[in-house]
Amino acid sequence: MSANHVSVFAPGSVGNVGPGLDILGLAIAGRGDTVHAEWHTGGALVVLDAGHPELPTDPSRNTAAIAAAAVLRRAGIARGIALRIEKGLPLSGGQGGSAASAVAGAVAANLLAKAALDTAALLECAMEAEATVAGRHADNLAPSLLGGLVLVRSVEPMDVIRLPIPDHLRVVLVHPAQQMKTRDARAVLPDVVSREIALHQAAHVAAMVAGACLGDLALLGRGISDRIAEPARAPLLPGFAEAQDAALAAGALGGSISGAGPTAFALVEDDAIGARVLAAMTAAYTEAGMPSQGRIARVDHHGAREV
Amino acid sequence: MSANHVSVFAPGSVGNVGPGLDILGLAIAGRGDTVHAEWHTGGALVVLDAGHPELPTDPSRNTAAIAAAAVLRRAGIARGIALRIEKGLPLSGGQGGSAASAVAGAVAANLLAKAALDTAALLECAMEAEATVAGRHADNLAPSLLGGLVLVRSVEPMDVIRLPIPDHLRVVLVHPAQQMKTRDARAVLPDVVSREIALHQAAHVAAMVAGACLGDLALLGRGISDRIAEPARAPLLPGFAEAQDAALAAGALGGSISGAGPTAFALVEDDAIGARVLAAMTAAYTEAGMPSQGRIARVDHHGAREV
Repeated sequence: MSANHVSVFAPGSVGNVGPGLDILGLAIAGRGDTVHAEWHTGGALVVLDAGHPELPTDPSRNTAAIAAAAVLRRAGIARGIALRIEKGLPLSGGQGGSAASAVAGAVAANLLAKAALDTAALLECAMEAEATVAGRHADNLAPSLLGGLVLVRSVEPMDVIRLPIPDHLRVVLVHPAQQMKTRDARAVLPDVVSREIALHQAAHVAAMVAGACLGDLALLGRGISDRIAEPARAPLLPGFAEAQDAALAAGALGGSISGAGPTAFALVEDDAIGARVLAAMTAAYTEAGMPSQGRIARVDHHGAREV
Repeated sequence: MSANHVSVFAPGSVGNVGPGLDILGLAIAGRGDTVHAEWHTGGALVVLDAGHPELPTDPSRNTAAIAAAAVLRRAGIARGIALRIEKGLPLSGGQGGSAASAVAGAVAANLLAKAALDTAALLECAMEAEATVAGRHADNLAPSLLGGLVLVRSVEPMDVIRLPIPDHLRVVLVHPAQQMKTRDARAVLPDVVSREIALHQAAHVAAMVAGACLGDLALLGRGISDRIAEPARAPLLPGFAEAQDAALAAGALGGSISGAGPTAFALVEDDAIGARVLAAMTAAYTEAGMPSQGRIARVDHHGAREV
């Protein structure tokens, strides 16, 4: 660590966990984005490396930079910062990549400038970035910052609740070979839903929260039933329905679309079941003519951290 | 206890706790309904005393009798039963009276006939009764049967989750001098809601569940925000909005309409705050020209039981 240079890693996440559209997210161990920040003599915020040819170096359009700039503005700091971003997460994959970059950018700026912003303020800064790609939601941001399973009660005021989650839970992530722009995935969401569906969603998000808090993984799985986002998005995702069926048949507790997709996720009780579920989901995608890549991951219990 | 006669008490409950329309209920200690059941030589199910002049003795219209008959039918028992009902709960009060009678009727028949139905089966039998007055909901039935705070994930299949609740929680109940037919209260509910409201409800029910499970009463209170039922029903309830404001100003964690109303409830951290909140709510109703009666109650942690 040096006062002139910090590096912050933020993990990827499953947003929109099951019925938890915009309100429930789970941090995933392993891959994530890293932001290196140092003071820059020019006085402005610059992006020296966006981490991927398709990502903008324009600081007004780069999520890490937007978040870092918001931190400096809120802390009243006028000095320039230079950012270099390492992308460990896929673009438009539904694995919380834009959120991880935003969180890492916000935390890096906060540490470099000793701004001492609290969790809610950091999330608000990161949400300024996330809003440019995914809307004003914190279901990827909050787990990426805090780790674990996080419920977003409200973004205005910001109120996020970190929930206990059994350590042996595993997450199977399968990424089919397609991209899904978050903007397109949001466009298909229904503007209105029946009261019956609203109550179904509330009951099932609440059941997932109860399952997590009570350490009842079967209940956590029974809570995974989404009647708002999944029915709207599944038709855009060839092979998803088959992969979901295959996951359940192979012993998954439950599964749905990760974030806005195209990645599919399944929750499983341990590594052995995870291996069977991963094989079953990959085979289902292959049979549907869709190449895919998958992994079995632990929950990231730590969230964003200096590296 | 005798093989020829059982008496079962079932407590009242706050249904529709805050945003938990149809899915979250809380059993309230103190008042409840008692059903006395004995074998009846006539072969039919008869109601000797409905417990209130306005309640039907016709067994096809009495909730305790409908539930008891469902238990006997499910257990394949053709003998007659005679019921006497003692109503401890007000009619059309929003304190779970019809559910308590149905649960007590079901449990009494189950014990008398040694039918050994499980929780889900008893709830299904009681729901046959509740459906005739309130629809196919179990948010009053489940806490009345099980005690405590209960989440209803699903009624088909029946899946209810009993949640931990801190013992020092108190519930202030204030019953204004009006009746509210559950049927009328349901008629004003919106058939469709915006996606934004659906997500708000889900986030807030989930926050209440997390608050209960984690023993965080402040979070439980922050979760009490209902944008579906309360806005629709409050205009039918003169004085409610003022009483709710008064409760919060006097230190309540949160509060809303109990079940379909007219009873208003507030959750408080202890008896001392409860006394202040009760006084404030009663004064607000008085100022709105509405006489009212109130009490401070503990949570009933036991549910229906033989007495």
